[in-house]
Amino acid sequence: MSPDAHDNTSGRIAGLKSLIREVPDFPKPGILFYDITTLLKDAAGLAALLDEMTAPHHDERPDLVLGIEARGFVFGPAMAVRLGCGFIPVRKPNKLPAGTVSVSYALEYGEDSIEAHEDAIQPGQRVLIVDDLLATGGTAAAACRLVEKLGGEVAALSFAVELNFLNGRARLPGYNIHTLLQYDE
Amino acid sequence: MSPDAHDNTSGRIAGLKSLIREVPDFPKPGILFYDITTLLKDAAGLAALLDEMTAPHHDERPDLVLGIEARGFVFGPAMAVRLGCGFIPVRKPNKLPAGTVSVSYALEYGEDSIEAHEDAIQPGQRVLIVDDLLATGGTAAAACRLVEKLGGEVAALSFAVELNFLNGRARLPGYNIHTLLQYDE
Repeated sequence: MSPDAHDNTSGRIAGLKSLIREVPDFPKPGILFYDITTLLKDAAGLAALLDEMTAPHHDERPDLVLGIEARGFVFGPAMAVRLGCGFIPVRKPNKLPAGTVSVSYALEYGEDSIEAHEDAIQPGQRVLIVDDLLATGGTAAAACRLVEKLGGEVAALSFAVELNFLNGRARLPGYNIHTLLQYDE
Repeated sequence: MSPDAHDNTSGRIAGLKSLIREVPDFPKPGILFYDITTLLKDAAGLAALLDEMTAPHHDERPDLVLGIEARGFVFGPAMAVRLGCGFIPVRKPNKLPAGTVSVSYALEYGEDSIEAHEDAIQPGQRVLIVDDLLATGGTAAAACRLVEKLGGEVAALSFAVELNFLNGRARLPGYNIHTLLQYDE
């Protein structure tokens, strides 16, 4: 990458970050929340965000894009069309109408689970997993297990925002991970 | 519209409908559920669905596309980019991080509410409301009230599927409503 290309990328990332609102004490005291809704409502920002999130994945040749409820749905279908893929939703329990496969994962207190339709993925299909945020990586790791349980292969994972200090990548060893907007604190 | 154009439209609609799965007894006995996930996972079907849902709205010149959680998020951002708009999410209570405005609406038993950020819409902005399904129209009517409470104007409402027999349009008098895939039973 030439220095100019690097500068342009840095400039584009800084431009997108400038549209993100930082909300202190959400969802609980002491947490700084990076609110992407102010970026999404900006027409040029939304288009640029979807283009930038999609760009690294063309060469990975996914067959399907998987979005994790609810904010993964914001990015997944638009990225799928750009990549010539279909879209599959992964949802909270009891939301999908046909037969499902489920994976559970630990939360700070207790556990949760996510589901996909049992026929969502054909064996060997390559799946790009999309969500808004890579934090501790628990939900993303569960989505990987769900794809593999259904016979698919995880082509890569893509997130709009990564909180580097939570080290979610440690929960996703061996996977291709792309994040666009990274924060160190 | 020429007979040929009519035939082409009918053919495209029939093609999209052929990708929808009919699931009996969901979410409860006696209900036939039109499952769009089988359409979404078809790459050509997904692209055609988003194109067809967007087409009627270019002339309405919306400023923003509003998606209702969770399935409205599947269509809203992709339609927004096609229309040169930003996207705003409407969510269940306590999900949005900054200051919100809320509207309540009646369910079969009890009530529910939806929220938007209080600064999501600038006064006078024209908003296209998007969701997967027009059924009884309760949620859609609440979304219209939410847009108007925030000073916006409802440019139109757009749904992938309409269940004609539930007569949701009666709850939305005076609004422009576009639905792509209609079912009479």
